[in-house]
Amino acid sequence: MDSGFKAISSGTATSPQGFLAGAVLSGISRQKELDLAILYSEKPCLAAGVFTTNAIQAAPVVLSQKHLQDRSAQAVVVNSGCANACTGDAGMADAEETATLVADRLSISPADVLVASTGVIGVPLPMERVRTGIPKITLISEGGHELARAMMTTDTFAKEIAVFVKAEPDGFTIGGVAKGAGMMHPDMATMLCFLATDATVDAGFLQSALQKAVDASFNMISIDGDTSPSDMVVLLANGLARAETIDDCNGERFQKALDEVCLYLAKCIARDGEGATKLIEVTVEGALTEAEARLAARTIVSSPLVKAAMHGNDPNWGRIVAALGRSGAQVTETRLDVYLNDVCVMKQGRPMPFDKQKVSRSLARKEVFLRLYLNLGRGESTAWGCDLSEEYVTINSAYTT
Amino acid sequence: MDSGFKAISSGTATSPQGFLAGAVLSGISRQKELDLAILYSEKPCLAAGVFTTNAIQAAPVVLSQKHLQDRSAQAVVVNSGCANACTGDAGMADAEETATLVADRLSISPADVLVASTGVIGVPLPMERVRTGIPKITLISEGGHELARAMMTTDTFAKEIAVFVKAEPDGFTIGGVAKGAGMMHPDMATMLCFLATDATVDAGFLQSALQKAVDASFNMISIDGDTSPSDMVVLLANGLARAETIDDCNGERFQKALDEVCLYLAKCIARDGEGATKLIEVTVEGALTEAEARLAARTIVSSPLVKAAMHGNDPNWGRIVAALGRSGAQVTETRLDVYLNDVCVMKQGRPMPFDKQKVSRSLARKEVFLRLYLNLGRGESTAWGCDLSEEYVTINSAYTT
Repeated sequence: MDSGFKAISSGTATSPQGFLAGAVLSGISRQKELDLAILYSEKPCLAAGVFTTNAIQAAPVVLSQKHLQDRSAQAVVVNSGCANACTGDAGMADAEETATLVADRLSISPADVLVASTGVIGVPLPMERVRTGIPKITLISEGGHELARAMMTTDTFAKEIAVFVKAEPDGFTIGGVAKGAGMMHPDMATMLCFLATDATVDAGFLQSALQKAVDASFNMISIDGDTSPSDMVVLLANGLARAETIDDCNGERFQKALDEVCLYLAKCIARDGEGATKLIEVTVEGALTEAEARLAARTIVSSPLVKAAMHGNDPNWGRIVAALGRSGAQVTETRLDVYLNDVCVMKQGRPMPFDKQKVSRSLARKEVFLRLYLNLGRGESTAWGCDLSEEYVTINSAYTT
Repeated sequence: MDSGFKAISSGTATSPQGFLAGAVLSGISRQKELDLAILYSEKPCLAAGVFTTNAIQAAPVVLSQKHLQDRSAQAVVVNSGCANACTGDAGMADAEETATLVADRLSISPADVLVASTGVIGVPLPMERVRTGIPKITLISEGGHELARAMMTTDTFAKEIAVFVKAEPDGFTIGGVAKGAGMMHPDMATMLCFLATDATVDAGFLQSALQKAVDASFNMISIDGDTSPSDMVVLLANGLARAETIDDCNGERFQKALDEVCLYLAKCIARDGEGATKLIEVTVEGALTEAEARLAARTIVSSPLVKAAMHGNDPNWGRIVAALGRSGAQVTETRLDVYLNDVCVMKQGRPMPFDKQKVSRSLARKEVFLRLYLNLGRGESTAWGCDLSEEYVTINSAYTT
């Protein structure tokens, strides 16, 4: 990682000072070990959030946005197994009751509780399980790992990280947990991410820093092009660390560390896409603008044909070029260079001879790099995704049955 | 079908008077029976075309657009097994030589030959096989069936139709053949379609009628969201039928018949999507505008999660609503009604109880109907696609290897 900050071993959302978490098996989810969790700060926090842009928003998303209007929060409650989405007025009442149950348990205001749910859409939240589950949650400072596990749906591993950032006099910590797997696309994926820091941060800066970090990470990953009504990324800052207040003037170090935390979690999500066997990184350079570079990178990494080819280690680069061509980015075929893992397969629009067997073997690695040079301008961007496997279809053809 | 026209038994692109076709196995394609074909009209034709909007265009697409500038054509040559796309200047020279070979064979001008290629991208067209293949093609009036088969790539059945339209004094015929299967999306799919008619048609009307028919059919199907550099729909009109000249004033009957021909072929393509086991029809009504209805229907039918759920007969309607939500169409959740095959699963934004087993059984049929009523305006539209199967991934993970 960059100088200025370093990863904390086994770091998680409760690595920053004053954050506690815990989880239980409430029975909301049918098969899991843990399905209901709380993240709590001992001190009220400044809070920032980025939410799904889907026109259909789950009750917890609507409620959490409302609770974030005053930019303060002290706890997040999350369940897996049920998204509480498309559940009408009853779903909103359930989300509100959940916030109140947590508030009572922690002796804080319901307005300082953020609510998140992930799982099947259109099914009411089994409130009796929430009611019996919440009082059973024990909050401890090592609880971040349980939180990360309780959030998982079709995820195959927990996604968590923390970094320590040097700052006068002592420094501060940023930690985070995320869940991903399916219904995942740029512009907020089907994902939840909770970030915590003990830094003291200016409120305006906190929101803009989070938006920047999300744009370069979670908004650049794609599993399947679908987005969900439940997505949210939330950042809580409790100011308990002994470090200078961070604002626009001295925010660079904080931004870099936050970017790194979000990027790490986003790549974990991409790598763990439903049925995925590898991470695909697509870099587009030389686009007319950064916006066109983003568009091109996201379109390529989202293409089912590119994803299926990568699954089969098939160096069928024509599909990459075809996806680029439909992305909306300006392309001049005779200027285009394309690389599969450092092997040039197209130079100035002409196919280049290459060792198919050798490139195919290199595509069998756990990380695959596709690079395109448009040679038109200075726009560049990177997007991440995963291969499309038979397993993805199997997982998603019988999700509720 | 509608009154005013009727389907011709075993109809194909050579059903209209004066059209001949034939095909051979040239060896361009590795495994196929037929891979090179010509469609020819005994009389020069007025011609119209709609081409891929992909920024990367295959040499045959560029050449055919050029040859169509004078709105006249007399033959189409098509090969499968190689797309002659991303092949640089050499690819363009190959497309031009192909047109000249066909022109010499038929004693017409190369500018009256349209060229189409479908198959792998980035591989040069094996010209020696084209040179030996073209003279071997025998053109006959029943040759449309061979043409349809020679165009197939991963298609599992030939797609062809012809209709006879009553008109003074005798009437006219419209026939067509298409290929589809993968890399297929609204805004021109990976597809080729050749339409022929013996009607006498005004040139301006011919192009606008074709664009209208394509917008309501081929532009409303999606297999996987990918588009190709090779897509084209071409319509040739030779005027050999004894019927009045068709123009804006009396074009309604021609338009209806052309729409039906295109719609039939488009639905064949959707039904035969790579690995597909069923046709999915998505109808959106009550959108604010027709444009929003189109957007919503296309987004839903393209959603990998919806497609995977339909594959598993899983009535997981939340994914349909989530796809609607990200489509860009305006949606008010509390007004939304959703039906799976005539069973209401959501009414005014609230989940409705339904017999999961029964609906799941109905989703196992060969045609599945998803209907959404937005209850906001008068915009309506229908899109077609197919389910996403493990077989799709298998086909596409080893296409060139």
